Amino acid sequence: MNLIDRLNWRYATKKFDSERKLTLDQINTLKHAFNLTASSYGLQPIKLVVISNQEFKNNLLQSSMNQQQVVQCSHLLVICIDTKIDEAYIETYFKRITDIRKTPANILESFKKSLINEFNDMSNSSIFSWSKNQAYLALGNLLTVCSVEGIDSCPMEGFLPDKYDEVLGLKPKNLKSVLVMPVGFRSSDDKFSSLKKVRKDISDSIIDIN
Amino acid sequence: MNLIDRLNWRYATKKFDSERKLTLDQINTLKHAFNLTASSYGLQPIKLVVISNQEFKNNLLQSSMNQQQVVQCSHLLVICIDTKIDEAYIETYFKRITDIRKTPANILESFKKSLINEFNDMSNSSIFSWSKNQAYLALGNLLTVCSVEGIDSCPMEGFLPDKYDEVLGLKPKNLKSVLVMPVGFRSSDDKFSSLKKVRKDISDSIIDIN
Repeated sequence: MNLIDRLNWRYATKKFDSERKLTLDQINTLKHAFNLTASSYGLQPIKLVVISNQEFKNNLLQSSMNQQQVVQCSHLLVICIDTKIDEAYIETYFKRITDIRKTPANILESFKKSLINEFNDMSNSSIFSWSKNQAYLALGNLLTVCSVEGIDSCPMEGFLPDKYDEVLGLKPKNLKSVLVMPVGFRSSDDKFSSLKKVRKDISDSIIDIN
Repeated sequence: MNLIDRLNWRYATKKFDSERKLTLDQINTLKHAFNLTASSYGLQPIKLVVISNQEFKNNLLQSSMNQQQVVQCSHLLVICIDTKIDEAYIETYFKRITDIRKTPANILESFKKSLINEFNDMSNSSIFSWSKNQAYLALGNLLTVCSVEGIDSCPMEGFLPDKYDEVLGLKPKNLKSVLVMPVGFRSSDDKFSSLKKVRKDISDSIIDIN
Protein backbone atom coordinates (compact mmCIF):
# COMPACT_ATOMS: atom_id res chain seq x y z
CA MET A 1 0.00 0.00 0.00
CA ASN A 2 1.27 3.48 -0.72
CA LEU A 3 0.85 6.29 1.76
CA ILE A 4 -2.46 7.57 0.38
CA ASP A 5 -3.85 4.02 0.50
CA ARG A 6 -2.75 3.84 4.13
CA LEU A 7 -4.48 7.13 4.96
CA ASN A 8 -7.61 5.86 3.21
CA TRP A 9 -7.39 2.66 5.26
CA ARG A 10 -7.61 4.71 8.45
CA TYR A 11 -11.01 5.48 9.92
CA ALA A 12 -12.25 6.50 13.35
CA THR A 13 -12.58 2.99 14.74
CA LYS A 14 -15.87 2.48 16.52
CA LYS A 15 -15.30 -1.10 17.71
CA PHE A 16 -11.96 -2.60 18.63
CA ASP A 17 -11.12 -6.30 18.87
CA SER A 18 -10.44 -6.45 22.60
CA GLU A 19 -8.47 -9.70 22.20
CA ARG A 20 -5.78 -8.15 20.00
CA LYS A 21 -3.04 -6.18 21.68
CA LEU A 22 -0.29 -4.00 20.23
CA THR A 23 3.19 -5.53 20.40
CA LEU A 24 5.85 -3.89 22.53
CA ASP A 25 7.56 -2.75 19.31
CA GLN A 26 4.37 -1.06 18.13
CA ILE A 27 3.88 0.72 21.45
CA ASN A 28 7.50 1.85 21.41
CA THR A 29 7.06 3.22 17.90
CA LEU A 30 4.08 5.28 19.06
CA LYS A 31 5.96 6.58 22.11
CA HIS A 32 9.04 7.60 20.13
CA ALA A 33 6.93 9.07 17.31
CA PHE A 34 5.07 11.18 19.89
CA ASN A 35 8.35 12.41 21.34
CA LEU A 36 9.61 13.30 17.84
CA THR A 37 6.56 15.49 17.09
CA ALA A 38 7.53 19.00 16.01
CA SER A 39 6.50 21.72 18.44
CA SER A 40 6.46 25.50 18.64
CA TYR A 41 10.01 26.69 19.49
CA GLY A 42 10.78 23.00 20.19
CA LEU A 43 9.35 23.42 23.71
CA GLN A 44 7.32 20.17 23.67
CA PRO A 45 4.64 21.35 26.13
CA ILE A 46 2.93 17.95 25.95
CA LYS A 47 3.01 14.52 27.54
CA LEU A 48 1.48 11.18 26.56
CA VAL A 49 -0.23 8.86 29.03
CA VAL A 50 -0.24 5.27 27.74
CA ILE A 51 -2.79 3.10 29.52
CA SER A 52 -2.92 -0.67 29.15
CA ASN A 53 -4.33 -1.24 32.65
CA GLN A 54 -7.92 -2.43 32.18
CA GLU A 55 -9.15 -1.09 35.50
CA PHE A 56 -8.06 2.43 34.60
CA LYS A 57 -9.71 2.13 31.20
CA ASN A 58 -12.93 0.97 32.84
CA ASN A 59 -12.80 3.89 35.28
CA LEU A 60 -12.58 6.33 32.38
CA LEU A 61 -15.54 4.94 30.43
CA GLN A 62 -18.19 7.09 32.04
CA SER A 63 -16.08 10.22 31.58
CA SER A 64 -15.76 9.31 27.90
CA MET A 65 -19.47 9.58 27.11
CA ASN A 66 -19.57 5.78 27.40
CA GLN A 67 -17.68 5.36 24.15
CA GLN A 68 -16.79 1.68 24.28
CA GLN A 69 -13.52 2.07 22.38
CA VAL A 70 -12.01 3.32 25.63
CA VAL A 71 -12.40 -0.09 27.27
CA GLN A 72 -12.09 -2.30 24.15
CA CYS A 73 -8.86 -0.84 22.80
CA SER A 74 -5.44 -2.33 23.31
CA HIS A 75 -3.99 0.89 24.73
CA LEU A 76 -5.66 4.15 25.61
CA LEU A 77 -3.52 7.18 24.77
CA VAL A 78 -4.20 10.48 26.52
CA ILE A 79 -2.43 13.57 25.19
CA CYS A 80 -1.83 16.10 27.97
CA ILE A 81 -0.43 19.60 28.07
CA ASP A 82 1.91 21.09 30.64
CA THR A 83 0.05 23.68 32.70
CA LYS A 84 3.09 25.48 34.08
CA ILE A 85 5.14 27.09 31.31
CA ASP A 86 7.24 29.47 33.36
CA GLU A 87 10.81 30.73 33.38
CA ALA A 88 12.11 27.52 35.00
CA TYR A 89 10.37 25.47 32.29
CA ILE A 90 12.08 27.47 29.54
CA GLU A 91 15.44 27.32 31.37
CA THR A 92 15.14 23.52 31.45
CA TYR A 93 14.56 23.51 27.71
CA PHE A 94 17.67 25.56 27.02
CA LYS A 95 19.71 23.35 29.35
CA ARG A 96 18.53 20.42 27.20
CA ILE A 97 19.77 22.16 24.04
CA THR A 98 23.21 22.84 25.52
CA ASP A 99 23.42 19.30 26.94
CA ILE A 100 22.55 17.66 23.61
CA ARG A 101 24.17 20.03 21.11
CA LYS A 102 26.97 21.46 23.27
CA THR A 103 25.90 24.88 22.01
CA PRO A 104 27.70 27.55 24.07
CA ALA A 105 25.10 29.12 26.40
CA ASN A 106 25.97 32.69 25.30
CA ILE A 107 24.89 31.91 21.73
CA LEU A 108 21.42 30.97 22.95
CA GLU A 109 21.10 33.71 25.59
CA SER A 110 19.17 36.30 23.58
CA PHE A 111 16.75 33.72 22.16
CA LYS A 112 16.17 32.38 25.68
CA LYS A 113 15.49 35.85 27.07
CA SER A 114 13.08 36.73 24.28
CA LEU A 115 11.20 33.46 24.84
CA ILE A 116 10.96 34.05 28.59
CA ASN A 117 9.67 37.57 27.95
CA GLU A 118 7.18 36.34 25.38
CA PHE A 119 5.66 33.79 27.75
CA ASN A 120 5.72 36.27 30.64
CA ASP A 121 3.60 38.59 28.53
CA MET A 122 1.09 35.91 27.50
CA SER A 123 -2.16 35.39 29.39
CA ASN A 124 -2.87 31.97 30.88
CA SER A 125 -5.58 31.38 28.30
CA SER A 126 -3.20 32.26 25.45
CA ILE A 127 -0.64 29.80 26.78
CA PHE A 128 -3.38 27.19 27.13
CA SER A 129 -4.44 27.69 23.48
CA TRP A 130 -0.82 27.57 22.34
CA SER A 131 -0.19 24.31 24.21
CA LYS A 132 -3.44 22.80 23.00
CA ASN A 133 -2.44 23.54 19.40
CA GLN A 134 0.73 21.54 19.98
CA ALA A 135 -1.37 18.64 21.32
CA TYR A 136 -3.40 18.62 18.09
CA LEU A 137 -0.18 18.66 16.08
CA ALA A 138 0.92 15.56 18.01
CA LEU A 139 -2.47 13.94 17.38
CA GLY A 140 -2.06 14.56 13.64
CA ASN A 141 1.36 12.95 13.75
CA LEU A 142 0.16 9.93 15.77
CA LEU A 143 -2.88 9.30 13.56
CA THR A 144 -0.65 9.19 10.48
CA VAL A 145 1.97 7.08 12.22
CA CYS A 146 -0.76 4.60 13.19
CA SER A 147 -2.05 4.50 9.60
CA VAL A 148 1.41 3.79 8.24
CA GLU A 149 2.02 1.07 10.84
CA GLY A 150 -1.38 -0.60 10.33
CA ILE A 151 -2.62 0.32 13.80
CA ASP A 152 -6.24 1.35 14.27
CA SER A 153 -7.16 4.43 16.24
CA CYS A 154 -9.97 6.80 17.11
CA PRO A 155 -9.33 10.49 17.84
CA MET A 156 -11.63 11.78 20.59
CA GLU A 157 -12.47 15.24 21.84
CA GLY A 158 -15.65 14.08 23.58
CA PHE A 159 -14.61 13.33 27.15
CA LEU A 160 -14.49 15.09 30.51
CA PRO A 161 -10.95 16.42 30.97
CA ASP A 162 -11.38 17.24 34.67
CA LYS A 163 -12.51 13.69 35.43
CA TYR A 164 -9.65 12.24 33.40
CA ASP A 165 -7.19 14.48 35.28
CA GLU A 166 -8.61 13.20 38.57
CA VAL A 167 -8.54 9.49 37.67
CA LEU A 168 -5.02 9.75 36.22
CA GLY A 169 -3.66 12.03 38.95
CA LEU A 170 -2.55 14.64 36.44
CA LYS A 171 -3.09 17.88 38.36
CA PRO A 172 -0.24 17.41 40.89
CA LYS A 173 2.00 16.73 37.88
CA ASN A 174 0.99 20.11 36.33
CA LEU A 175 -0.69 18.31 33.45
CA LYS A 176 -4.11 18.61 31.84
CA SER A 177 -5.67 16.06 29.50
CA VAL A 178 -6.79 17.52 26.16
CA LEU A 179 -7.15 14.65 23.69
CA VAL A 180 -7.90 10.94 23.90
CA MET A 181 -6.90 8.30 21.37
CA PRO A 182 -7.68 4.61 21.83
CA VAL A 183 -5.40 2.44 19.67
CA GLY A 184 -5.50 -1.25 18.77
CA PHE A 185 -7.12 -3.28 16.02
CA ARG A 186 -10.56 -2.94 14.48
CA SER A 187 -13.12 -5.61 15.26
CA SER A 188 -14.07 -7.67 12.20
CA ASP A 189 -17.69 -6.68 12.77
CA ASP A 190 -17.18 -2.91 13.05
CA LYS A 191 -19.63 -1.87 10.34
CA PHE A 192 -18.04 1.61 10.22
CA SER A 193 -14.85 0.16 8.72
CA SER A 194 -16.54 -0.46 5.37
CA LEU A 195 -18.29 2.91 5.05
CA LYS A 196 -17.06 5.18 2.28
CA LYS A 197 -14.84 8.00 3.49
CA VAL A 198 -16.61 11.36 3.42
CA ARG A 199 -14.31 14.10 2.18
CA LYS A 200 -14.61 17.32 0.23
CA ASP A 201 -13.74 17.19 -3.44
CA ILE A 202 -10.04 17.85 -3.72
CA SER A 203 -10.92 20.97 -5.76
CA ASP A 204 -12.86 22.27 -2.77
CA SER A 205 -10.02 21.55 -0.36
CA ILE A 206 -7.08 23.05 -2.26
CA ILE A 207 -6.33 26.42 -3.84
CA ASP A 208 -3.47 26.35 -6.36
CA ILE A 209 -1.45 29.46 -7.12
CA ASN A 210 0.81 28.53 -10.01
CA MET B 1 14.51 3.52 6.76
CA ASN B 2 11.82 2.63 9.25
CA LEU B 3 9.26 5.17 10.36
CA ILE B 4 11.20 6.37 13.41
CA ASP B 5 14.30 6.87 11.22
CA ARG B 6 12.15 8.93 8.86
CA LEU B 7 10.84 11.09 11.71
CA ASN B 8 14.42 11.56 12.91
CA TRP B 9 15.44 12.55 9.38
CA ARG B 10 12.93 15.41 9.49
CA TYR B 11 14.02 18.78 10.82
CA ALA B 12 12.73 22.33 10.45
CA THR B 13 14.58 23.12 7.23
CA LYS B 14 16.28 26.49 7.38
CA LYS B 15 17.65 26.56 3.82
CA PHE B 16 16.04 24.96 0.80
CA ASP B 17 17.72 24.10 -2.49
CA SER B 18 15.80 26.51 -4.71
CA GLU B 19 16.74 24.51 -7.82
CA ARG B 20 14.94 21.34 -6.73
CA LYS B 21 11.20 21.16 -7.20
CA LEU B 22 8.66 18.63 -6.00
CA THR B 23 7.28 16.35 -8.70
CA LEU B 24 3.62 16.51 -9.64
CA ASP B 25 3.16 13.12 -7.91
CA GLN B 26 4.66 14.46 -4.71
CA ILE B 27 2.45 17.55 -4.76
CA ASN B 28 -0.60 15.40 -5.40
CA THR B 29 0.32 13.17 -2.47
CA LEU B 30 0.46 16.22 -0.18
CA LYS B 31 -2.87 17.53 -1.47
CA HIS B 32 -4.67 14.23 -1.02
CA ALA B 33 -3.04 13.61 2.36
CA PHE B 34 -4.26 17.03 3.50
CA ASN B 35 -7.78 16.24 2.35
CA LEU B 36 -7.66 12.90 4.19
CA THR B 37 -6.74 14.53 7.52
CA ALA B 38 -9.13 13.58 10.31
CA SER B 39 -11.22 16.46 11.66
CA SER B 40 -13.65 17.15 14.46
CA TYR B 41 -17.06 15.72 13.45
CA GLY B 42 -15.55 15.28 9.97
CA LEU B 43 -16.36 18.91 9.19
CA GLN B 44 -12.98 19.73 7.58
CA PRO B 45 -13.02 23.46 8.43
CA ILE B 46 -9.69 23.93 6.64
CA LYS B 47 -8.26 24.61 3.22
CA LEU B 48 -4.74 24.38 1.78
CA VAL B 49 -3.21 27.04 -0.46
CA VAL B 50 -0.40 25.57 -2.58
CA ILE B 51 1.87 28.26 -4.02
CA SER B 52 4.48 27.54 -6.67
CA ASN B 53 4.28 31.04 -8.21
CA GLN B 54 7.55 32.77 -7.37
CA GLU B 55 6.11 36.27 -7.42
CA PHE B 56 3.55 35.36 -4.76
CA LYS B 57 6.27 33.76 -2.64
CA ASN B 58 8.39 36.90 -2.97
CA ASN B 59 5.42 39.07 -1.99
CA LEU B 60 4.98 37.05 1.20
CA LEU B 61 8.60 37.23 2.35
CA GLN B 62 8.29 40.43 4.34
CA SER B 63 5.14 39.15 6.06
CA SER B 64 7.08 36.02 7.01
CA MET B 65 9.66 37.80 9.18
CA ASN B 66 11.98 37.58 6.17
CA GLN B 67 12.40 33.84 6.63
CA GLN B 68 14.10 32.89 3.38
CA GLN B 69 12.53 29.42 3.21
CA VAL B 70 9.36 31.13 1.95
CA VAL B 71 11.09 32.16 -1.28
CA GLN B 72 13.59 29.28 -1.60
CA CYS B 73 11.14 26.42 -1.18
CA SER B 74 9.65 24.44 -4.04
CA HIS B 75 6.07 25.04 -2.88
CA LEU B 76 4.72 27.21 -0.09
CA LEU B 77 1.78 25.64 1.71
CA VAL B 78 -0.59 27.84 3.68
CA ILE B 79 -3.13 26.14 5.94
CA CYS B 80 -6.29 28.22 6.26
CA ILE B 81 -9.45 27.89 8.30
CA ASP B 82 -12.99 28.58 7.20
CA THR B 83 -14.28 31.68 8.98
CA LYS B 84 -17.99 31.08 8.38
CA ILE B 85 -19.17 27.89 10.08
CA ASP B 86 -22.90 28.44 10.03
CA GLU B 87 -26.03 26.38 9.46
CA ALA B 88 -25.52 26.38 5.66
CA TYR B 89 -21.96 25.10 6.16
CA ILE B 90 -23.16 22.21 8.28
CA GLU B 91 -26.03 21.47 5.86
CA THR B 92 -23.47 21.20 3.04
CA TYR B 93 -21.49 18.70 5.10
CA PHE B 94 -24.53 16.49 5.67
CA LYS B 95 -25.43 16.68 2.00
CA ARG B 96 -21.92 15.41 1.29
CA ILE B 97 -22.48 12.44 3.63
CA THR B 98 -25.77 11.50 1.98
CA ASP B 99 -24.27 11.96 -1.51
CA ILE B 100 -21.27 9.76 -0.78
CA ARG B 101 -22.73 7.15 1.55
CA LYS B 102 -26.36 7.22 0.41
CA THR B 103 -27.30 7.37 4.09
CA PRO B 104 -31.03 8.19 4.36
CA ALA B 105 -31.32 11.81 5.55
CA ASN B 106 -33.66 10.90 8.44
CA ILE B 107 -30.96 8.75 10.03
CA LEU B 108 -28.63 11.74 10.21
CA GLU B 109 -31.27 14.31 11.15
CA SER B 110 -30.80 14.37 14.92
CA PHE B 111 -26.99 14.48 14.66
CA LYS B 112 -27.27 17.34 12.17
CA LYS B 113 -29.61 19.29 14.44
CA SER B 114 -27.41 18.80 17.49
CA LEU B 115 -24.37 19.98 15.53
CA ILE B 116 -26.18 23.07 14.25
CA ASN B 117 -27.28 23.87 17.81
CA GLU B 118 -23.80 23.30 19.17
CA PHE B 119 -22.21 25.72 16.72
CA ASN B 120 -25.03 28.25 17.18
CA ASP B 121 -24.23 28.28 20.90
CA MET B 122 -20.48 28.71 20.41
CA SER B 123 -18.83 32.13 20.47
CA ASN B 124 -16.85 33.26 17.44
CA SER B 125 -13.62 32.92 19.38
CA SER B 126 -14.51 29.34 20.43
CA ILE B 127 -15.19 28.42 16.81
CA PHE B 128 -11.91 30.06 15.82
CA SER B 129 -9.99 28.00 18.41
CA TRP B 130 -11.78 24.84 17.35
CA SER B 131 -10.93 25.44 13.68
CA LYS B 132 -7.36 26.36 14.49
CA ASN B 133 -6.95 23.08 16.37
CA GLN B 134 -7.99 21.25 13.21
CA ALA B 135 -5.36 23.20 11.24
CA TYR B 136 -2.67 22.01 13.66
CA LEU B 137 -3.93 18.44 13.30
CA ALA B 138 -3.50 18.80 9.52
CA LEU B 139 -0.02 20.24 10.03
CA GLY B 140 0.90 17.21 12.16
CA ASN B 141 -0.35 14.93 9.41
CA LEU B 142 1.47 16.81 6.63
CA LEU B 143 4.78 16.95 8.51
CA THR B 144 4.72 13.18 8.97
CA VAL B 145 3.60 12.57 5.40
CA CYS B 146 6.53 14.70 4.19
CA SER B 147 8.95 12.76 6.42
CA VAL B 148 7.72 9.43 5.06
CA GLU B 149 7.94 10.66 1.46
CA GLY B 150 11.43 12.20 1.87
CA ILE B 151 10.17 15.75 1.42
CA ASP B 152 11.69 18.53 3.52
CA SER B 153 9.50 21.05 5.29
CA CYS B 154 9.47 23.78 7.88
CA PRO B 155 6.41 24.44 10.07
CA MET B 156 5.95 28.18 10.71
CA GLU B 157 3.78 30.13 13.11
CA GLY B 158 5.82 33.31 12.72
CA PHE B 159 4.11 35.27 9.97
CA LEU B 160 1.50 38.02 9.62
CA PRO B 161 -1.83 36.30 8.92
CA ASP B 162 -3.64 39.52 7.94
CA LYS B 163 -0.99 40.34 5.34
CA TYR B 164 -1.09 36.79 3.99
CA ASP B 165 -4.89 36.98 3.75
CA GLU B 166 -4.56 40.20 1.78
CA VAL B 167 -1.89 38.96 -0.64
CA LEU B 168 -3.73 35.67 -1.22
CA GLY B 169 -7.19 37.21 -1.41
CA LEU B 170 -8.51 34.95 1.34
CA LYS B 171 -11.01 37.21 3.11
CA PRO B 172 -13.64 37.27 0.32
CA LYS B 173 -13.39 33.46 0.31
CA ASN B 174 -14.19 33.37 4.07
CA LEU B 175 -10.74 31.99 4.80
CA LYS B 176 -8.04 32.95 7.28
CA SER B 177 -4.41 31.81 7.12
CA VAL B 178 -3.19 30.15 10.34
CA LEU B 179 -0.08 28.11 9.49
CA VAL B 180 2.64 28.23 6.88
CA MET B 181 4.73 25.32 5.66
CA PRO B 182 7.36 25.66 2.95
CA VAL B 183 8.16 22.28 1.36
CA GLY B 184 10.93 21.15 -0.97
CA PHE B 185 14.44 19.81 -0.51
CA ARG B 186 17.11 20.86 1.95
CA SER B 187 20.12 22.70 0.62
CA SER B 188 23.34 20.68 0.93
CA ASP B 189 24.82 23.53 2.96
CA ASP B 190 22.00 23.95 5.49
CA LYS B 191 24.06 23.57 8.65
CA PHE B 192 20.91 22.93 10.68
CA SER B 193 20.39 19.58 8.95
CA SER B 194 23.30 18.01 10.83
CA LEU B 195 22.44 19.32 14.30
CA LYS B 196 21.39 16.73 16.86
CA LYS B 197 17.66 16.63 17.47
CA VAL B 198 16.72 18.14 20.83
CA ARG B 199 14.03 16.11 22.55
CA LYS B 200 13.00 15.26 26.09
CA ASP B 201 14.09 11.89 27.43
CA ILE B 202 11.38 9.43 26.48
CA SER B 203 10.85 8.84 30.23
CA ASP B 204 10.02 12.53 30.59
CA SER B 205 7.61 12.48 27.66
CA ILE B 206 5.57 9.38 28.48
CA ILE B 207 3.61 8.16 31.53
CA ASP B 208 2.87 4.43 31.47
CA ILE B 209 -0.08 3.02 33.35
CA ASN B 210 0.25 -0.77 33.09
